[in-house]
Amino acid sequence: MSGNTFGTLFSVTNFGESHGPAIGCVIDGCPPGMSLCEADIQHDLDRRRPGTSRHVTQRNEPDQVQILSGVYEGKTTGTPIALLIQNTDQRSKDYGNILQTFRPGHADYTYFQKFGIRDPRGGGRSSARLTAPTVAAGAVAKKWLKEKYGTTFHGCMTQIGELPIPFESWDHVGHNPFYAPCADVQAFEDYMDSLRKAGDSCGARIRVVATGMPVGLGQPIYDRLDANIAYAMMGLNAVKGVEIGAGFASVAQRGTTHGDSLTPEGFRTNNSGGVLGGISTGQDLEVSIAIKPTSSILSPRDSIDQNSQPTEVVTKGRHDPCVGIRATPIAEALLALVVMDHALLHRAQCGDVQVAMPAIPGHIGA
Amino acid sequence: MSGNTFGTLFSVTNFGESHGPAIGCVIDGCPPGMSLCEADIQHDLDRRRPGTSRHVTQRNEPDQVQILSGVYEGKTTGTPIALLIQNTDQRSKDYGNILQTFRPGHADYTYFQKFGIRDPRGGGRSSARLTAPTVAAGAVAKKWLKEKYGTTFHGCMTQIGELPIPFESWDHVGHNPFYAPCADVQAFEDYMDSLRKAGDSCGARIRVVATGMPVGLGQPIYDRLDANIAYAMMGLNAVKGVEIGAGFASVAQRGTTHGDSLTPEGFRTNNSGGVLGGISTGQDLEVSIAIKPTSSILSPRDSIDQNSQPTEVVTKGRHDPCVGIRATPIAEALLALVVMDHALLHRAQCGDVQVAMPAIPGHIGA
Amino acid sequence: MSGNTFGTLFSVTNFGESHGPAIGCVIDGCPPGMSLCEADIQHDLDRRRPGTSRHVTQRNEPDQVQILSGVYEGKTTGTPIALLIQNTDQRSKDYGNILQTFRPGHADYTYFQKFGIRDPRGGGRSSARLTAPTVAAGAVAKKWLKEKYGTTFHGCMTQIGELPIPFESWDHVGHNPFYAPCADVQAFEDYMDSLRKAGDSCGARIRVVATGMPVGLGQPIYDRLDANIAYAMMGLNAVKGVEIGAGFASVAQRGTTHGDSLTPEGFRTNNSGGVLGGISTGQDLEVSIAIKPTSSILSPRDSIDQNSQPTEVVTKGRHDPCVGIRATPIAEALLALVVMDHALLHRAQCGDVQVAMPAIPGHIGA
Amino acid sequence: MSGNTFGTLFSVTNFGESHGPAIGCVIDGCPPGMSLCEADIQHDLDRRRPGTSRHVTQRNEPDQVQILSGVYEGKTTGTPIALLIQNTDQRSKDYGNILQTFRPGHADYTYFQKFGIRDPRGGGRSSARLTAPTVAAGAVAKKWLKEKYGTTFHGCMTQIGELPIPFESWDHVGHNPFYAPCADVQAFEDYMDSLRKAGDSCGARIRVVATGMPVGLGQPIYDRLDANIAYAMMGLNAVKGVEIGAGFASVAQRGTTHGDSLTPEGFRTNNSGGVLGGISTGQDLEVSIAIKPTSSILSPRDSIDQNSQPTEVVTKGRHDPCVGIRATPIAEALLALVVMDHALLHRAQCGDVQVAMPAIPGHIGA
Repeated sequence: MSGNTFGTLFSVTNFGESHGPAIGCVIDGCPPGMSLCEADIQHDLDRRRPGTSRHVTQRNEPDQVQILSGVYEGKTTGTPIALLIQNTDQRSKDYGNILQTFRPGHADYTYFQKFGIRDPRGGGRSSARLTAPTVAAGAVAKKWLKEKYGTTFHGCMTQIGELPIPFESWDHVGHNPFYAPCADVQAFEDYMDSLRKAGDSCGARIRVVATGMPVGLGQPIYDRLDANIAYAMMGLNAVKGVEIGAGFASVAQRGTTHGDSLTPEGFRTNNSGGVLGGISTGQDLEVSIAIKPTSSILSPRDSIDQNSQPTEVVTKGRHDPCVGIRATPIAEALLALVVMDHALLHRAQCGDVQVAMPAIPGHIGA
Repeated sequence: MSGNTFGTLFSVTNFGESHGPAIGCVIDGCPPGMSLCEADIQHDLDRRRPGTSRHVTQRNEPDQVQILSGVYEGKTTGTPIALLIQNTDQRSKDYGNILQTFRPGHADYTYFQKFGIRDPRGGGRSSARLTAPTVAAGAVAKKWLKEKYGTTFHGCMTQIGELPIPFESWDHVGHNPFYAPCADVQAFEDYMDSLRKAGDSCGARIRVVATGMPVGLGQPIYDRLDANIAYAMMGLNAVKGVEIGAGFASVAQRGTTHGDSLTPEGFRTNNSGGVLGGISTGQDLEVSIAIKPTSSILSPRDSIDQNSQPTEVVTKGRHDPCVGIRATPIAEALLALVVMDHALLHRAQCGDVQVAMPAIPGHIGA
Repeated sequence: MSGNTFGTLFSVTNFGESHGPAIGCVIDGCPPGMSLCEADIQHDLDRRRPGTSRHVTQRNEPDQVQILSGVYEGKTTGTPIALLIQNTDQRSKDYGNILQTFRPGHADYTYFQKFGIRDPRGGGRSSARLTAPTVAAGAVAKKWLKEKYGTTFHGCMTQIGELPIPFESWDHVGHNPFYAPCADVQAFEDYMDSLRKAGDSCGARIRVVATGMPVGLGQPIYDRLDANIAYAMMGLNAVKGVEIGAGFASVAQRGTTHGDSLTPEGFRTNNSGGVLGGISTGQDLEVSIAIKPTSSILSPRDSIDQNSQPTEVVTKGRHDPCVGIRATPIAEALLALVVMDHALLHRAQCGDVQVAMPAIPGHIGA
Repeated sequence: MSGNTFGTLFSVTNFGESHGPAIGCVIDGCPPGMSLCEADIQHDLDRRRPGTSRHVTQRNEPDQVQILSGVYEGKTTGTPIALLIQNTDQRSKDYGNILQTFRPGHADYTYFQKFGIRDPRGGGRSSARLTAPTVAAGAVAKKWLKEKYGTTFHGCMTQIGELPIPFESWDHVGHNPFYAPCADVQAFEDYMDSLRKAGDSCGARIRVVATGMPVGLGQPIYDRLDANIAYAMMGLNAVKGVEIGAGFASVAQRGTTHGDSLTPEGFRTNNSGGVLGGISTGQDLEVSIAIKPTSSILSPRDSIDQNSQPTEVVTKGRHDPCVGIRATPIAEALLALVVMDHALLHRAQCGDVQVAMPAIPGHIGA
């Protein structure tokens, strides 16, 4: 309710600031009896970690997660799982010059207006660093969903700045610094290099998919699965748009085209993106998000200071020239958290056993 | 939590089915002492009402709202405001043929899979008719926000099917059946007529704006203002995409362009759509949504029945060939509900008085 | 969150005022597929109904419940169940004299202080009449729990004013106007008659029991089963104390006595009242509540008016001289609502199947 | 929702186990701009700390609190305040003998039944040690309420086992190990010594008071102030009963006696305990709780093991022979958390400024 807890039954309460002693989260509602250790979580944290290529912030954080509670002899006990990540590489001196001014496009201004006080060190609470606990919690959700339903999550970048990225195969995603699903990423390397030289930044488009979805997740009218996905994604730093299935393209579609035909073997298409009436169809969840360009850039820009006097802002320090680059594992985690919460909600009302119905084994053209 | 309540402090609990005796909602948390009568609510309900032009469903519902509680001698008392709307024109016989089959693109399938039972009369709970209580609740929120902060809400259609709609003036919106912000809507009339003849349907794009926004609304990390807007909008029937500010266009923008410069007179642009770091800047909230084509169409389509046998579906009955046409007042209401809830949340944590700061009177180029 | 919703997964949102057009509630989260009709609910409403003996208010309300939604062809659909009860016998003229003054011991004062406005007709929102929707919702919960787990709920009065009521058998409870578990209630009749003549009122103690409880309901630390029972009971109008199991008597007990020994056949005693560490043991839930004397009495008392001037208050109108008399079915309903919510919460986190463990068939001396 | 978060607007999410690496909590919703440092919190933690007299567990824990987030340059920023307390003196070997058996009166049995797994070290999650984070969070709430409204919290023990404790003065409470409000505590020392020799334990009764209460806190029908107090108190380990104001004594009172008369100078009595209709009157909140005897005792008792075979249980290790002794600061903290949450809820709906009304300066006979 107060803005730092995600989910209702599998709830994640996030805490910390970019340059405070530590960040972390408390996961409440994890089912008991699941094997869990730090390594299960560390893998996704490492994918999100800064400093792994020249295209992301050079802040060097190991992002080593520690489980403080909720696990006994390697198994979840059903009690809260507290996860702690120490901040080790804070260089707060870099931020002295932004203490009295507001970066255009940054939360500096709104945090100050809301609270009358803000922690300026590294962006404080508004730093993208605070997505690390979300990724950690998402790893726990992913593990449970995979073991329980066989549901898995994948993401990739589909556009960087003006450059669309062709989808060749999920296999490429782990082998380049952009989470690009294609073999040759030289063009993107060059693009990022020129951008960095120009002291500028760019946006990105990310696609996230859940495969092996249980049918029937989502609540009618308000807590719809698609609504909660949109909530999760738009809440990710720098996101300005969310699409499910055909997304904005559905505006120009006809009903005869858009509606995914059903056959005894499954759906013929997936314009719905796996959600109808707010409830999962069992098809892949298909989500696409737009990420704006980073607001912390070297190029000077007009702004005002805390006394509302005109000034010019130049942001030094270590920043991602394209925050979208590290967004893929975060978006996966958020999607997993939404599905996890709805899986438990569904179980509460409708029980574990799915409605008996003639099988629709899969969807054609997934 | 169970899917039919919107908001936490100004909460709206929705109930009813398309062809049951009545629909309605309970608004909890409305501040006391505000003048309120049925007419305050009826105006927006009438804008959403079916049967007002040949381009929408011919179901004839007066949608007369009755206040059952929470108002004493014309003023809100701070206790729950229950709103009731009788269903008067149910023709359930029209739906007999869809009882055993699933319309492609419709929630028939997922409701049945989730609950093992569904009310097929008029789409039951998944009918767009259930947006009427949302509109009614939104009218209450709009009234309070206008009186308290001067905040107002406007919406219009910006695309219908393949046809973009030029923005000329807000003044046109109330004078045509499409909520189009332009004087000449003949092309859209013709388009809809041809679509209806073809037994097909189309999508739409809607823009919603809040003007006179208080600064500082929104909570960090998860209950962000933009996240809650996305949640609200994606939860509206048939919505497949949501944008705030520059939206998907921000992917191809540079940081030097996207970041809205601040001047002592206000922001120079509004790429942020009025939200930075999840918190309102005081600029207009700018939201755009994509609505898919109606799934209930006359053209025959492949589907399956409840025994998973192949069949062909033709939907008779009265349906909107473009559900987007009536979506504008609903989207306005949803935006008002989000802002209202955040206004109360902000007041809880930070108090009524805004942070003292040199005034930024408006934004240039709103 | 805003004070008029009970429960999180089986949630009940209450609305209405004593002399408004109607009262009611919306139940959200009821599992689908359960048979439900008005008669299932009416039975408990009739037990709570006013005007059934000379010892309760003579207001004549049929309290006929109408199901507005959530049920299709006699079965719950998993969507919100809206229940409506018309107010038919309002005599608001009786309350004219209390509009400007505050009855000692009544919520008149606090409602006015909180909201700056209050509906004085029949106590408005603070009237015990608003327990009717709670009873109606409780009847739905009772039905599900009985069918699913065999859990049943019983209540009785154990003290009226100074007079303790001996427990002889549950069978007597339905055969006297006091819900007394004994055959001879003449003494209580006489007591109430003398009280009424004196223009005074008295308190009562009520006992409520749940039998056939599933083991394992309740969440650790905060949302404990006993905590939620206390919340539910203390929230009932006029309740000033709640005990579970040995209650206040446990203060003077020793650990060797209080701790209920376990045997392969079950627990030897039930000092715990069926809850250990906030989680149900499977034994009977044993709850006891203290209800204060009615504040609306004929005897004149010192008070102040809205201008803070001294005045004398005499309450005319129709009131219960002992609100405790009608409290038994309400307390049962509240206990059922708590158990229901926890049953769904448990199912969400731990699934439907209980932990496999050697059977403990019952408890001795239940 | 999942059982480990207290409060809705000032929410406290608790984590940790008795013998894990650390315990703590995350406070969300604290208003910004309040001075806060570890010392502000440590004072109350030290009052609750084990090992301070021979009458409490000899576990030696410094309970040093560390603020991980939410405070910048000594002031709260409005973002989550994470508090960490390391566990330093775990001696898990003491608990080996209880791993396979269930202590009568202990949560061993129910945790195992609920989750199918439990952390047996020191009671794991069910240990009274987990009240430390509650006390820490309560200290933050107390500070804000004192600075904002002048509200203060006091508690004392009013009965230990069979021995009532006379109220002489609040001044004595801090000068004896029992939180007794009297000068001479020798009888209680002797009583505890004899109990310890007998390998037995006893209960206690605690009184908690809030003074300087704002009027108007509490929501109607369900989230009543008294209901939430009962929830908070009954959720404290070992509590079996809660009273507000006259409590169970009100059963035998008459309406003419119980209803607190109002005069222009204030209320004449406080039978209501500061709450009418679920809303604060501005008088002192008066709460009383019953604490059962500790279940972990040296005396052998009948029980069963995990295979449901009969066995005898003797609890070694370090335990409080009367858990009530350390309960006073915890009960104060819980009361403060309830008032804090309601203060923010009230502000959300009704704003900061109280309703204008002729002053009622205080209550007679407080």
